[in-house]
Amino acid sequence: MFDKIYLQPTEALARILDAIPVGQPPTEMHPIEECYGRVLAADIISPEDLPSFPRSTVDGYAVRAEDTFGAKETSPVYVELRYEVQMGEAPNFDLPMGIASKMPTGGMLPEGANAVVMLEHVQQGSGGILEILRPVAPGDNVIRRGEDIGKGAEVLHKGRMLRAQDIGALAGIGITFIEVFKKPVLSFISTGDEIVSAGSHVLMGQVRDINSFTLAGLVKSHGGILLKKGIFRDDYGIIKEATEESLENSDMVLISGGTSAGEKDMTAAIIDDIGTPGVLFHGVALKPGKPMIGGVVRGKPILGLPGHPAATVVCFDLFIRPLICILSGRAEKTGLMGTVKAIMAKNIASAAGREDHIRVYLEDNQGTISVFPVLGKSGLINTMVKAHGIVVVTREKLGLDAGEEVDVRLF
Amino acid sequence: MFDKIYLQPTEALARILDAIPVGQPPTEMHPIEECYGRVLAADIISPEDLPSFPRSTVDGYAVRAEDTFGAKETSPVYVELRYEVQMGEAPNFDLPMGIASKMPTGGMLPEGANAVVMLEHVQQGSGGILEILRPVAPGDNVIRRGEDIGKGAEVLHKGRMLRAQDIGALAGIGITFIEVFKKPVLSFISTGDEIVSAGSHVLMGQVRDINSFTLAGLVKSHGGILLKKGIFRDDYGIIKEATEESLENSDMVLISGGTSAGEKDMTAAIIDDIGTPGVLFHGVALKPGKPMIGGVVRGKPILGLPGHPAATVVCFDLFIRPLICILSGRAEKTGLMGTVKAIMAKNIASAAGREDHIRVYLEDNQGTISVFPVLGKSGLINTMVKAHGIVVVTREKLGLDAGEEVDVRLF
Repeated sequence: MFDKIYLQPTEALARILDAIPVGQPPTEMHPIEECYGRVLAADIISPEDLPSFPRSTVDGYAVRAEDTFGAKETSPVYVELRYEVQMGEAPNFDLPMGIASKMPTGGMLPEGANAVVMLEHVQQGSGGILEILRPVAPGDNVIRRGEDIGKGAEVLHKGRMLRAQDIGALAGIGITFIEVFKKPVLSFISTGDEIVSAGSHVLMGQVRDINSFTLAGLVKSHGGILLKKGIFRDDYGIIKEATEESLENSDMVLISGGTSAGEKDMTAAIIDDIGTPGVLFHGVALKPGKPMIGGVVRGKPILGLPGHPAATVVCFDLFIRPLICILSGRAEKTGLMGTVKAIMAKNIASAAGREDHIRVYLEDNQGTISVFPVLGKSGLINTMVKAHGIVVVTREKLGLDAGEEVDVRLF
Repeated sequence: MFDKIYLQPTEALARILDAIPVGQPPTEMHPIEECYGRVLAADIISPEDLPSFPRSTVDGYAVRAEDTFGAKETSPVYVELRYEVQMGEAPNFDLPMGIASKMPTGGMLPEGANAVVMLEHVQQGSGGILEILRPVAPGDNVIRRGEDIGKGAEVLHKGRMLRAQDIGALAGIGITFIEVFKKPVLSFISTGDEIVSAGSHVLMGQVRDINSFTLAGLVKSHGGILLKKGIFRDDYGIIKEATEESLENSDMVLISGGTSAGEKDMTAAIIDDIGTPGVLFHGVALKPGKPMIGGVVRGKPILGLPGHPAATVVCFDLFIRPLICILSGRAEKTGLMGTVKAIMAKNIASAAGREDHIRVYLEDNQGTISVFPVLGKSGLINTMVKAHGIVVVTREKLGLDAGEEVDVRLF
């Protein structure tokens, strides 16, 4: 079943990547509060120091550190408490030798001070005299001006998908409006005389459209937009027209169904018909997902997806996700995210020469994560509902043994 | 610094959980396409079989399996090809013994047929006779009626956070409108005379509001809504009024700043002032995050968060995230998600008796993931920007050694 002519998934993806132009997506400006999960279109250089002044990290007393050297519980050092710094205000004095200033956490150090003694290490003596019980070194309990982010530093790089704390950092340096890449738009064409919409009553022989709902969620959560073009009859002219129109209006086209070798499987012919280079591969050494088609027309990827729900998710992960990543302008590898090491609880068999993506569920037994295969044919959406993730059996392996450590890619 | 009176984070969280009422959040109805990431408010029972008819999983020929027994390449079995099933239509015939019907992938099996022979295992003979080269067993290459989801089966449980494939399954059984729990609303009160809005020019001694931006993203990505109530001066009456108003309008209140032991730290007093049981803990054996306050008033959690950006993220993870989870009506543990096993690249020291949350970044060296601590004080937002996740040093450990395997909780 897995002929030598079938490409490995990575080779198949590489053919698409080689055929799409290197470039960068169009950009748009947005306030930062709308940019969680968006991809930066330009490096962010800090326009200022953060903090813009030396800040205390504790409640205590600003001092010249040299004044505290040698302080012990048994022989304190004495300084005079003469000042108090108010939160949010610049001190209007320089701190002389032998003098301390009361400091709130986050307050600005006066000129002359270079450290803060924590409240807990000081005793209040009589007549405004403080007993310092432990010495501090210069810089102790202080964040220096620009220590967090220095003026001119590259804070975030172009191509970064912005997380919550990245947006926080932008707020911190006063950048409230940024340039991000436009979200890639994917068109989804559902084909098949047996497919009806989710809201329809099914007649015998008909099934409802599942894949557009699954893909819409996956595409959205990876930063893209899925345009559902509708459900189309297995008619060459109709599907060709829908594909050409989708190619005009979006950055990638997904055609579900029509990828097997049966008589009505016309997706490959349509892709070749509408432009060059057309179909780049038809069939991949992958289960589920074997009948997948990949092509490029006018510089845009067109994928023919098998209609099976589980194959749809695997093809998303191996092909659509990395393509969204590139069409989004993302510069970073995302392979690390969402993978756990765990132990196989059962043997799983696999054929040599193909890459098997096994749907699995996980059980946590006193800290050891056990991996169980979800049983059921690949056409079953329910296996995807039960599964926590995917274990890949690489092509040179004949299966996985119980007790073996594996990487589980979580959904 | 870490006195015995400080609770461990899990004990502190347990105090809050014990003081909030057990119940379930209000619900609302939505079309399924708006329910990605939402939490189901009722069990989903399938109203029908999926598929509603026996389906072929391959292109081939529907047969009675018994007719193929003993078939070999060298001595094929002969059957008559008399019918063809069309996609999306119910066959209008019963399959007699010795007869085959052409079947498309996904087509409905005729009455009498119980298996499908793949196209590849059949040769077309003359006069409508097929040579079957391999036998099939009953059920081969067929999905039985209801095999994916049976009528009356519990497909999804109340409390499930819906993933893309879950929504696909709902579409598959024709459920397009569902009851989900309302998203929990959290109010965020930023306090501090030094805090100015992100769009402001900072004067000496002032810093911009970072935490409301970080928290808004974290709360949103975990299924909640953050209401930014604004930045308030360190004034007892003003902050008390804002807290009481927030308690009316939201399910949880977060107050940032004002949690240290300094003079202006009034958060704990306000929580106790506005109702019972009031403050449940003040200070946690945790770094960063030590000065955290937890309380409950009128059955709603009120948290006092340290102003440091890194502490905000750690407190989110340990306190706010699990509380959002409960206020969302989620029934499932989420601990497994987003954790990777990796190897410490350097030693990290820690004090016994406290739980250290170390910000780390990861490097992938030929398949081994190495963990490096992100250096810098906990007040630095930039450490959170550089970090991929958190490694926890539990309270009984004095640190982590290079070469040790650790769990990294990814952001």
